[in-house]
Amino acid sequence: MSELRVIPLKGIPEVREGDSVARHLSRALSRAGVSLRDRDILVVKQKVVSKSEGKVVRLDGVTPGPRAAELAEAEGKDPRIVELVLRESVRVVRSGHGVIITETRHGFVCANSGVDQSNVGEGRACLLPSDSDASARRIRKALERSTGRRLAVVITDTFGRPWRRGQTDVAIGCSGIDPLLSFRGRRDSFGYELRVTEPAVVDEVAGAAELVMGKLDMVPAAVVRGVRYRRGEGGVKSLLMSREKDLFR
Amino acid sequence: MSELRVIPLKGIPEVREGDSVARHLSRALSRAGVSLRDRDILVVKQKVVSKSEGKVVRLDGVTPGPRAAELAEAEGKDPRIVELVLRESVRVVRSGHGVIITETRHGFVCANSGVDQSNVGEGRACLLPSDSDASARRIRKALERSTGRRLAVVITDTFGRPWRRGQTDVAIGCSGIDPLLSFRGRRDSFGYELRVTEPAVVDEVAGAAELVMGKLDMVPAAVVRGVRYRRGEGGVKSLLMSREKDLFR
Repeated sequence: MSELRVIPLKGIPEVREGDSVARHLSRALSRAGVSLRDRDILVVKQKVVSKSEGKVVRLDGVTPGPRAAELAEAEGKDPRIVELVLRESVRVVRSGHGVIITETRHGFVCANSGVDQSNVGEGRACLLPSDSDASARRIRKALERSTGRRLAVVITDTFGRPWRRGQTDVAIGCSGIDPLLSFRGRRDSFGYELRVTEPAVVDEVAGAAELVMGKLDMVPAAVVRGVRYRRGEGGVKSLLMSREKDLFR
Repeated sequence: MSELRVIPLKGIPEVREGDSVARHLSRALSRAGVSLRDRDILVVKQKVVSKSEGKVVRLDGVTPGPRAAELAEAEGKDPRIVELVLRESVRVVRSGHGVIITETRHGFVCANSGVDQSNVGEGRACLLPSDSDASARRIRKALERSTGRRLAVVITDTFGRPWRRGQTDVAIGCSGIDPLLSFRGRRDSFGYELRVTEPAVVDEVAGAAELVMGKLDMVPAAVVRGVRYRRGEGGVKSLLMSREKDLFR
């Protein structure tokens, strides 16, 4: 295996509804002097994509229902935010200690249905893209057209996890890359068959990109170069565990 | 932020009990022509560390108790493996669909208490190091002595997770690096206070390293260069969520 590089794409301006994310990325690539190569992975933060798709909501237009009011009271949260969290969810998985874990309309299990107030300005909240795999596909197609390269795109968000403090960035959408790299049925050097080994390569790519993006530096994108992956169109949807197989839902 | 590099360290031979992991790493660094720099992070797979510490167990010496026999029957597993899983655990968190999730003696919540049969040869299983933070510290100290650099060491293992298929590598031990990079109380460009933002940088480093290590390529270590982190001695222990705060235990 050869070296992996993660190149931050800086200086992307505040993204507005209707902006082309691919065009923002192209300009940032030029500025950084980076020429894309076949199999490069473009990683983009969810917020950039959400903003371009008009998923920023003004809180003064949100009227909390009784369930949102009750849950907001119990967890010490803004009832308008909780109303959005509930609208974005199909059910609440757990709540407590000021945290609301939901299963979102998209199938993610995460805090607050991914509704987030950072980096959008006061009195506003940002929702996840309606279909992040489709968003990733659009961005990939546009970049492939403009560069002539075969690329992959991963859209990331910052999720907490059970049992461990802190958060890691994970993939909420992808295109051009199979989220899993399966070793099922392969054998180790002793001949032992690897039965369950399927690295979630898109999530490891998301985390690697986060290491150069940070939270405050206006680095909403990165190029990850040198990853071994399979091309594929399953999207992050294919990574989500079915409810029947899930021991924690 | 500048670029991140992840450099695989190949050609480390089969590690034996009593071997110095630091010496194996030093030789691999020489072969790869890599001179360590201050703040480089050495990532090492758990199995290498476990083998050096004699944590490989022969299954023909393991007698399953009645509880192991019952659980093995229910989940379709080798009762001797389940016996080891139970010995390594303080309790079973969930079991079903052929999976046993335990809380280990070390405080991790993971499948099979980290007991693993791959890459150790037939009739054997590998246990986690007794104290991976201490192992990381020993390796770091030895490498710092031999190189004169200030380094960090992260020991990784491959864990599944709820809600998503596949696995990612996470940190089970670290030294010289604070596992979390806290943005608590910092403000975004709109002045919004980030209240819960604490990237679990060691886990993102573990995942980034996995991308160059793979599962079959005998690349049990990597250098991760260019990560922004705080020096610290809390170890991965400080990353584990207390049972009281955990909504999924």
